[in-house]
Amino acid sequence: MLRAKIFVQLKAGVLDPQGKAVMNSLITMGYKDVVQTTISKYIQVDFDNSDVEEVKRMTKEMCDNLLANPNTESYRFEIEEI
Amino acid sequence: MLRAKIFVQLKAGVLDPQGKAVMNSLITMGYKDVVQTTISKYIQVDFDNSDVEEVKRMTKEMCDNLLANPNTESYRFEIEEI
Repeated sequence: MLRAKIFVQLKAGVLDPQGKAVMNSLITMGYKDVVQTTISKYIQVDFDNSDVEEVKRMTKEMCDNLLANPNTESYRFEIEEI
Repeated sequence: MLRAKIFVQLKAGVLDPQGKAVMNSLITMGYKDVVQTTISKYIQVDFDNSDVEEVKRMTKEMCDNLLANPNTESYRFEIEEI
């Protein structure tokens, strides 16, 4: 079994209202040292397949075709044995 | 500067309709090897503070009081130098 650990985040320059809202809340709560917050999606996909190269290829396709919005989001992933 | 890398995920047993929807889509798209998908939040908080113990303490408070829903979500985090 292999697991793809995928991070999908907004591209630089794309407005992140959720991250901004969290940062404003944290500062209001008194955490004055906070300088930036970002919120991303972390997606785990488990495969009943032990061919790392094939799982990498499928994960890239999944990100390009379903998991990430190519207009506004970038992604990175790693594959690990589980 | 320190960065808290926080993962907020649904507790085991809590229904994950978004993860289920993604899994169904992937299987419909032909990825028959997929056995499970989960979707979590990945939150980065950057601090203008280099005291690791203090940043750990603040991050735990933030998770308990704002970032995670204690009824349905669990969290884990790591602190790194940036």
